[in-house]
Amino acid sequence: MKIVIACDSFKEAISAKQACYAIKKGIEQVFPDAEIVQVPMADGGEGTTEALIDASQGSYHRIQVQGPLGDEVQARYDLLGDGQTAVIEMASASGIHLVKKENRNPLLASTYGTGQVIKTCLDQGIRSFILGIGGSATNDGGAGMAQALGYRLLDKKGKEIALGNQGLAHLDRIDSYSAHPALAEARFKVACDVNNPLYGPQGASAVFGPQKGATSEMIAHLDANLEHFSRIIYRDLGREVAHVAGAGAAGGLGAGLLAFTQAELQRGIDIVIETVHLKEALEGVDICFTGEGQIDHQTQYGKTPFGVMRLAKKVAPQSKVIALCGSVGKEIENLYQLGFDGIFSITPGPSSLEDLLPDTQENLTASSRAISQMLLK
Amino acid sequence: MKIVIACDSFKEAISAKQACYAIKKGIEQVFPDAEIVQVPMADGGEGTTEALIDASQGSYHRIQVQGPLGDEVQARYDLLGDGQTAVIEMASASGIHLVKKENRNPLLASTYGTGQVIKTCLDQGIRSFILGIGGSATNDGGAGMAQALGYRLLDKKGKEIALGNQGLAHLDRIDSYSAHPALAEARFKVACDVNNPLYGPQGASAVFGPQKGATSEMIAHLDANLEHFSRIIYRDLGREVAHVAGAGAAGGLGAGLLAFTQAELQRGIDIVIETVHLKEALEGVDICFTGEGQIDHQTQYGKTPFGVMRLAKKVAPQSKVIALCGSVGKEIENLYQLGFDGIFSITPGPSSLEDLLPDTQENLTASSRAISQMLLK
Repeated sequence: MKIVIACDSFKEAISAKQACYAIKKGIEQVFPDAEIVQVPMADGGEGTTEALIDASQGSYHRIQVQGPLGDEVQARYDLLGDGQTAVIEMASASGIHLVKKENRNPLLASTYGTGQVIKTCLDQGIRSFILGIGGSATNDGGAGMAQALGYRLLDKKGKEIALGNQGLAHLDRIDSYSAHPALAEARFKVACDVNNPLYGPQGASAVFGPQKGATSEMIAHLDANLEHFSRIIYRDLGREVAHVAGAGAAGGLGAGLLAFTQAELQRGIDIVIETVHLKEALEGVDICFTGEGQIDHQTQYGKTPFGVMRLAKKVAPQSKVIALCGSVGKEIENLYQLGFDGIFSITPGPSSLEDLLPDTQENLTASSRAISQMLLK
Repeated sequence: MKIVIACDSFKEAISAKQACYAIKKGIEQVFPDAEIVQVPMADGGEGTTEALIDASQGSYHRIQVQGPLGDEVQARYDLLGDGQTAVIEMASASGIHLVKKENRNPLLASTYGTGQVIKTCLDQGIRSFILGIGGSATNDGGAGMAQALGYRLLDKKGKEIALGNQGLAHLDRIDSYSAHPALAEARFKVACDVNNPLYGPQGASAVFGPQKGATSEMIAHLDANLEHFSRIIYRDLGREVAHVAGAGAAGGLGAGLLAFTQAELQRGIDIVIETVHLKEALEGVDICFTGEGQIDHQTQYGKTPFGVMRLAKKVAPQSKVIALCGSVGKEIENLYQLGFDGIFSITPGPSSLEDLLPDTQENLTASSRAISQMLLK
């Protein structure tokens, strides 16, 4: 009997690693002799770095860089256990949480700090990157990142343009001559769960601008500047990035990564699955437990339990896949049609979220124990 | 595939019949071709009459009788679908809920009304009785019931003693001559889940007196009167009833029924199991769903899910028995050891009891659907 536990974190309560362990405790009471494999999971969103670093016993690193509006911030990068791959969340250097609400301005905010983090890693010999790009304050199409990596973005007079989306209006040409030489070898996997193009009605500015402080007149400027940027990129770098699905993610950082690095935009869950070698773990599995705090009709759009289920059913079609959650939505019939063998809330009875959070591990153990019993014999 | 649903009510929310139906709806989504048998259940406590009458499509009847303290009350008896068996809850005529708190007095309260209900049934030709005896206001050892059924309880002067425990102090002899003649043929099944004897430190007065308004001096009187009553019963009727387990139930009505009728004290759940023919329903069952509002370490002491599980495992040892509940207690490991294959709360996430109650049916359906899916193939 082989059982795999590939569980996400339970938001506000416990990490993915703790969740896996709590589930394991329940299983062991019923199947003491089973081979139980724990794979802490994430989907590219919150908790992803922790899950990847926990899974590989990697390390955390802090670094001083330039924040979205030029002030110094404490950013982070993390190295997987192999020491060869950096995991970077762009929000750590260029996130909207770093800017007070009244100061938010997507015309000015820059991804320069994210570029500095990448440069630091390149300088240390890192050539493999996993990038989380949620929660950005920026709308600069990754121009700042490019500048930090040595690209020169010049105006008509041959002078470096200003940081932020605003500067792009004056961009005349891109000079790659002094770009970081290691970029030729480095590979970036970018966790991206949106399909927006760089500009236009579904582009970065129109869709994500407002939540970053853009007014409606501002959006027209932001959008025109990104369009202009993409034309110069095409002309000078030979890359057509504006219409790639996900180019508009993180204020166009998706497009910038495609333009200035060797990057691939992937679903977050797929990057995590690759990185933690979930496929290998699932080979020959009989029962797979997955889960996260909430399971509902959104789960099928790139959430961990869905990604795990799909892979388990592919690798081991006879396996049963059970999802545990803190809260299960009403409209989940579709999830059964898609392949889940059971979806259960761990909530033991009427109680408030506040009272339930401290019991999350205990309730996970009780639930996995009950389900294991039912699957016995 | 044969599936039996033998579920109790979910207190404050839905009846046993509604619970069974809600569970059935979930199962049908997964096993559309299964034979599904619904058996609304109860354990002799609250909801028992409804479950039995629902299960057999019986009828409800109202009747005016004498309440615990002599005032008129509206009592009830119900007939099973066969029209041959009466189901009577003694509390309906002699219950503590009928007496205001400040008027409660176990020296005075009488089971006379319960006797009147029984007499009415006997007069109609009913010879088979199921009695629920919880919630009594009385401590008269069933003396009032006996008087209503025609027994004469006489003092030294040959005069009828007063109703209530107090009168028993003057009891000199019992005259059976005018007892209802049908009592010779009538059979009583008494649902009794306590083991208390009639008198003594574990007897009716000491253990249940206080909750009926007895002070500690009063208890000594109550107890002595019941002991005296039992001696006269033994001498005049030839029945030793004082030390039978359950004799002390309902203020000694247990003893009174043993003395004055052809009665058998049984666990409530066993009476229900017999009455609804659960054993026959369980023959050849593959999966059995049971449940009630709360499942915890008390469940093994005569509660419906436990009784159903034990019988299912006896009748169909290979069957799986799954219990659903609104709230599951923490210490339930023992229930798995005793035979349950799964115990699940239907609570879908953090929420108050108040908000959850209206969704009970929906949540039962979702849970039975999830469990059925897991048991598929």
